[in-house]
Order: sequence, then C-alpha cells, then structure tokens
Amino acid sequence: MKKKEAAALIKGRAFDKLKDTLTHMLPADIAALSEDCGTKELTIIFRLLPTDLAAETFAYMSSGRQKTLINALSDKELKAVLRELFLDDTVDIIEEMPANVVSRIIKAADPAKRRQINELLSYAEDSAGSVMTTEFVYLDKNNTVEDALKRIKAVGLAKETVYTCYVTDRRQLIGSVSLLDMVVCDKDKMISDIMDTPVVSVSVSEDRETVANIFTRHGFAALPVTDSENRIVGIITFDDIMDVIREENAEDISMMSAVVPGEESYLKTSSLKHAKSRIVWLLVLMLSATVTGAVTSRFEAQIAAMPLLVAFMPMLTDTGGNCGSQSSAMVIRAMASEEIGNKDFFRVMGKEFSVALICGVILCAVNFIRIIIMYKNILMAATVTVALMCTIILSKLLGGVLPMLARRMKLDPAVMSGPLITTIVDSCSVLIYFTAAVRILKI
Amino acid sequence: MKKKEAAALIKGRAFDKLKDTLTHMLPADIAALSEDCGTKELTIIFRLLPTDLAAETFAYMSSGRQKTLINALSDKELKAVLRELFLDDTVDIIEEMPANVVSRIIKAADPAKRRQINELLSYAEDSAGSVMTTEFVYLDKNNTVEDALKRIKAVGLAKETVYTCYVTDRRQLIGSVSLLDMVVCDKDKMISDIMDTPVVSVSVSEDRETVANIFTRHGFAALPVTDSENRIVGIITFDDIMDVIREENAEDISMMSAVVPGEESYLKTSSLKHAKSRIVWLLVLMLSATVTGAVTSRFEAQIAAMPLLVAFMPMLTDTGGNCGSQSSAMVIRAMASEEIGNKDFFRVMGKEFSVALICGVILCAVNFIRIIIMYKNILMAATVTVALMCTIILSKLLGGVLPMLARRMKLDPAVMSGPLITTIVDSCSVLIYFTAAVRILKI
Repeated sequence: MKKKEAAALIKGRAFDKLKDTLTHMLPADIAALSEDCGTKELTIIFRLLPTDLAAETFAYMSSGRQKTLINALSDKELKAVLRELFLDDTVDIIEEMPANVVSRIIKAADPAKRRQINELLSYAEDSAGSVMTTEFVYLDKNNTVEDALKRIKAVGLAKETVYTCYVTDRRQLIGSVSLLDMVVCDKDKMISDIMDTPVVSVSVSEDRETVANIFTRHGFAALPVTDSENRIVGIITFDDIMDVIREENAEDISMMSAVVPGEESYLKTSSLKHAKSRIVWLLVLMLSATVTGAVTSRFEAQIAAMPLLVAFMPMLTDTGGNCGSQSSAMVIRAMASEEIGNKDFFRVMGKEFSVALICGVILCAVNFIRIIIMYKNILMAATVTVALMCTIILSKLLGGVLPMLARRMKLDPAVMSGPLITTIVDSCSVLIYFTAAVRILKI
Repeated sequence: MKKKEAAALIKGRAFDKLKDTLTHMLPADIAALSEDCGTKELTIIFRLLPTDLAAETFAYMSSGRQKTLINALSDKELKAVLRELFLDDTVDIIEEMPANVVSRIIKAADPAKRRQINELLSYAEDSAGSVMTTEFVYLDKNNTVEDALKRIKAVGLAKETVYTCYVTDRRQLIGSVSLLDMVVCDKDKMISDIMDTPVVSVSVSEDRETVANIFTRHGFAALPVTDSENRIVGIITFDDIMDVIREENAEDISMMSAVVPGEESYLKTSSLKHAKSRIVWLLVLMLSATVTGAVTSRFEAQIAAMPLLVAFMPMLTDTGGNCGSQSSAMVIRAMASEEIGNKDFFRVMGKEFSVALICGVILCAVNFIRIIIMYKNILMAATVTVALMCTIILSKLLGGVLPMLARRMKLDPAVMSGPLITTIVDSCSVLIYFTAAVRILKI
C-alpha cells in the first residue's frame, strides 16, 4: 500500500522519493494521508504535488485541513490551486469556511469565476442548484458531430461532465447526446439526428434528495438543471449524487437515533462536539419521559397494593417502542424514496393497522401463555394482554402516521422516529395498562 | 406527465396512440406504469414496445411483474428480450425468480450467454462478482487510439461500460483510459502513452459495501474486478453501485429498527409479509424484556414500601435506551464507511466514555433539580441521579462496543443497534436503580 510508504517517507523526511510516491497516488488517498500529519508536513506534501493533482487532492480534504492549508499558502499558490479546482468543489469548500478564509478565496479567484461562485452560493442549501456545476458543454442542434467533438476538445473539461452533452435550441434544452454516440456515428451527421429525446431535467430549486431519486431510478450519469424558462444553467453528475445519497442517509440515521446530524467523522470529532449533537434530544426526551412518570404516580395506590404490576411495565413499554420504531423506519424509508406521499395517508394507516393486528395476536398469545405458566394468574395475564394489544396497535399507527404528519408540517419525517415515538407511546401504554389493571383486577 | 396520458390510453384501449406515447417514455417510467395495470394490459404494453426498449423496461420492473411477464411470453419473445438484456441485469432477474422460471430463462439464452450467466450466478451474494458485468471492453497497451476506438465501435456496448476502458498486458490489468482522453488525443498515439496508472481494482470476492466505499471515495464511474492473478474478469459501473448504496442503506435502517431487511416496496408488500419481517425481533425483544421484569420482581418489597420509585423507571430506561441508540448508530455508520475498524476498539470506548460523562453530568444535573423541585426529596433525587449516571455510562459504552464485537463475530454490526441495546441496558439500569434505592433510601 502506497499510503504507508508515503507516511514512512514523511517521517524520514525523504522528500524527493516522497514526491515520486505521491504523484503515483490517487487524490483521495493523498488527502487521507494528509489528515494524519502536522501542519508543517501538510504544507510540504502539498507543495510537492503538481498543481492539478494538488487541486484535486485539496477538494478531497476535510474542511479543517483545507482551512489550515489556505492559511499556510501564499496568495500566488492559492490562486494556482483555485485555477485548477472545479467550480462546484470550490463552492463546496467555501460553504464550510469562516468569513476571513472565504474572502481570501474570493479575492484569489479571477473575476469570471468570482461571479460564478457568487451565483452558485446563492442557491438554497440542499437544492439542485447547490449541487450542480456550471462547467458543462452544450451543443447546438445544428452542429455536426465533428463540430461537436471539436468543441468538446476545445472546452477541455473533466470526464464526468462530458459523458453526456446537452443539446439546446435558442438556449432551450431539447435533448441529450452521449459522448459514445458521437464517437461511434458518422462524423458529418447532425447532432439533432442522433440526440436522445425526451431529456429529463430538474429545476434549480428542486430538493437534492428528489434529484438523487431520479438518478438512481434511471441510472443516469448526469442530469441537466434548468431555470424557470427551461434554459440549461448547469449539470449534476453521478459522483456528486453519490455524495448526496451518503449524506442524506447519514442524516437519516442520525435523526432516527436522536442525534443532530453533523458532517464530521466519528473519531476526529471531539467528545464535546459529539456530546453537543446528542444532548439536545436526550434532554427533550428525558423531560418528556417524566410525563410517563407522572402517569405512573397517579397509580401509586394500585402499585402499592400489587407491586407485581411493575414487572410487566418494561416489556410493555419496550414492545411499544419497538413496534413504533419499526413502523416509522419503514414509512420514513418509503417516503425518502418517494414511494409514498401525502395522498397515501390512509393506505399507510390501513397497512399498519393490519400489521399491528397480526403481530399483536402473536405477541399477545405468547405473552399470555408465559404469564399463565410463570404466575398462574389469569386476570393478570388478561390485563397485560389487553394493554399489550392496545399498545401495539397504537404504536404502529403512530409510527406510520407521525412521520407523514411531520412532512405535512414541513419537518423532516425522520424527526418522528424511534426515540420520540417510544416516548410518546410509553405514557399512553402505561396509562392503558394501569387503567386495565384497575378495571380487570379491581384494585 | 406522459405517465398519466399512457394510463388513460390503456384504459381507453387506444393502442396505436399508446405505442407512440410509450416509445417516447423512459424505461423506468414505463416499468412504473406497468406496475399498476393488469396482466393483460401488461402483456399488451410490453408487446407494443420495440425490442430494445422492451428489454430495458423489463430490467426496471419489480420481480413480481417480471415473473408474470415471463409466464405470459412465448419462447420466441422471451429469447428476443434476453438477447437485448444486459448480462448483469439478466443475472439480477434470475436471482429473484422461482426455479421453473429460471430454467425457462436459462433455456432461452444462447450457449455463450448461458455459460456467462452460470458463472456470474456462482459468485457469493453481496460480493463484487455478483454486482459486476462481464460485458466490457479491454484494450491492449500496444493498440493505437484509432484501433481502440474502432474496437469500441465494433463491440457496441452500453454507455456506462465504455466511459472507462481498461488496459491489459498479457491479460494482466495495467491501466485505464477514459473515452474522453481517447477522443481528444491524436489518433495515432499508443494506448500505453495515454493510459492512467495506477488503476484501482477490486477482487471478485470483495464485499460490495467496500466496493461502494471505493466508488464514493474516489468518485469513479467504473471499477475493474480482477481474479486472484490480477486478470480483469469484469467491471462494476456507477449505476449498479448507486443501487448497492441504496440497498445497503435500506438494510441498515431496517436492521437498526429491528426489521428483517427485505427488498420489496412498502405499499406493495402484503401485511402478512410486513408482519413476518417484524415479528421475529419483536418476539425476541419482548421475551428478553422479561429479564427486566424478573429483576423488578426481586424488588417487590421495596416497590410496595415506596411506589414513587416506579415513577422514575420510564425516564431511566428511556434515557438509557436513547443514549445507547445514539452511540450504536454513530459507530455503525462509521464502521460502514470504514472510518473505524477493529483496531479502534479502545479509541471508541474512550470517546464514548467521555461523551457519556459530559452528557451524564448535564442530564443528571437537570434531573436532580427537577426532582428536588417536584418532590422535595434529596435522597430520592440522589438515588435517581446515581442510577442515571451509571445507566448513561453503561449504555454509551455498550452502544459503542457491541456493534464492534458483532463484527468480530462476523455478524452485521447493525444487529447491535437501538432496540437490542435498549433491552440489554434496561435490565442493568433497573438493577442499578433498585440497588441504589436499597442503599441510599434504606428500604
């Protein structure tokens, strides 16, 4: 592995050999290597790289490292890197930087690039506009294939951005043509003869999660982004979408586990920062759980009379929480992939209700038998069974419905997942349980 | 939207117009349309499509629809579809079919394809071999660019599979060359002059999640797959990896919510099947929760003497569960992206311990004050605080460590997530709580 070799060379300060090793490594790997070394070594490594590799590597670094580097580089060096950096990467970097670093970057960019940067920065976070790049090739429908290929050569862009080229007619997007089709056909054909129609496009303001769904649905390599008048203003490529899918997924998993989503890595994030992203929900949920405590307090007389009642509480609340988590996870996932929308509200309710009935009957039967065997107390078994059945139905319904309501209220559905639903279901199930106990056990 | 239009045409049986509309739609959209119509309409739609579009559409259908169609098509029609279908798609389809349908497909394929299918089917599920396609172009390092382009034209493959071509020397993989580089350079240059080295490759037996991590890490469009002697045997393209990422995400979210992962959609899956994928974990967790119940039973005397004790149980077990879920989710995510491995066991423990201390101090302080205000009982507050602090530390440590232990035991780390950890922590926290109560409150 080249990475270990390079690390040894840094340690041994064998810079000539290091330069040779680095130029044979991939940018993402050099970036990973640079994460583990000091500021001085970082600057040395970076200065050893040829400018294009340096720029690519820079794009792969964590924002912490990028900040350190920008502060260490001279204006001239920074300019050279920015010239090689892709526009969308530049914007991604700027979005993570403090104001003083941003102004240095903007100052170092040439006027045309500066204008484009400002334009891209103005798109809402999580919109298609914020993911797209404005560096792409568009072809006129009246071009010949030969003209088109010449144009592609002249523009000299990255691979990802020319696998699919977009065809315009008076700036309107009318079709797409793949590089492969241009390569394999007669060079004097017209672009309009070989282009594919219809072309799928998204609006600049489209949510990036929706864009990701379109990519995976059709397996596209790129997707054009249009303004309100169907003029192409940028393109989104598959590599950026892979990042979006990863980020959205990490965000969902965080939210579903009551963690405020962050972008940093696990090991590199300080304990304080980890605690910060976890404490808010822990506090909210802990205080909400006192409602369940208050409900329990109302039944102190019953508990004192029959302490055995308490033995079934953990089973009851855990099962309720698990049922709710299952339902909400399935519904959140289906909503994220756009399989279910607002209109499916009652279908989801129906589905969850019947799943709850099936699961409920099985769980209640097993539990009933267990209590009869262990405690030989039919009334106790009946009490727990009634409470368990109600809890399962309630938690599955809430698990299915609350994420959908959250979306209607313009919240992320993932807010309404396991932890919150568990807390909500808890107080209800305890209330049902003790009420059933009062009625059935007559205490 | 074309989809609504087509649906109306099916209803009105206007097949001429339908054919015209369908041929202007994208395969994934036609497949989506076909999901909602009867078997008869499905066959009609399919027969209206030109063979290449029919094959592409077929690949996008759900396995239920595919099965219906295969049963409805004649041998001749099936052969025509299979001829147009990509090899990796064919294999994906076969994997979901019952034995009788599989044998029909295998019979309809020509001998060469049949051999390739059998080869691909032999790779382990979730391995790189099972995701790759064996339809790709490899170039010899001694080819000129002109020869190479001719070869690409002659092979006539899909776009995704030729964006990057792989260069071999006596069957050994030695480099890669992008279609763009071939298009923009002089046609009489040698492939060996313009190829990129080193080339990253994966072994056929590599886990597909690791492959997906390599794709997202480097932003690759394709990745070559090699056998044990570094001979290229197939390639994996970005579109298949996007599906892998989605599937792995869905799997993680399911497992983390105690649902047995399945591939079907939410609405189309029957309630019975939903219940089946949920009931196993519910039963296991419900029965495990009886341990907590048994622990509680041991303290019936204390509960009878002081029923107020019960009021803090939900808060305690919920907070423990939430702390554990947070930690396990963060660790599972970091393990999935390969940021942390087995060697980081003690770093994770250290991190979780210090996060637990920070969160614990805050939560305990808030809780202590709340109990003092509400119940004016310092000893009670002290008991709950001691139990809460121990629970938080324990649950964060278990949440961090159990997913790592699961992986060492060759289990999916996602097994050790919220629901199971909650159940484990529950019994411990109840035990700690009542023990503290006995000691501090002297009951």
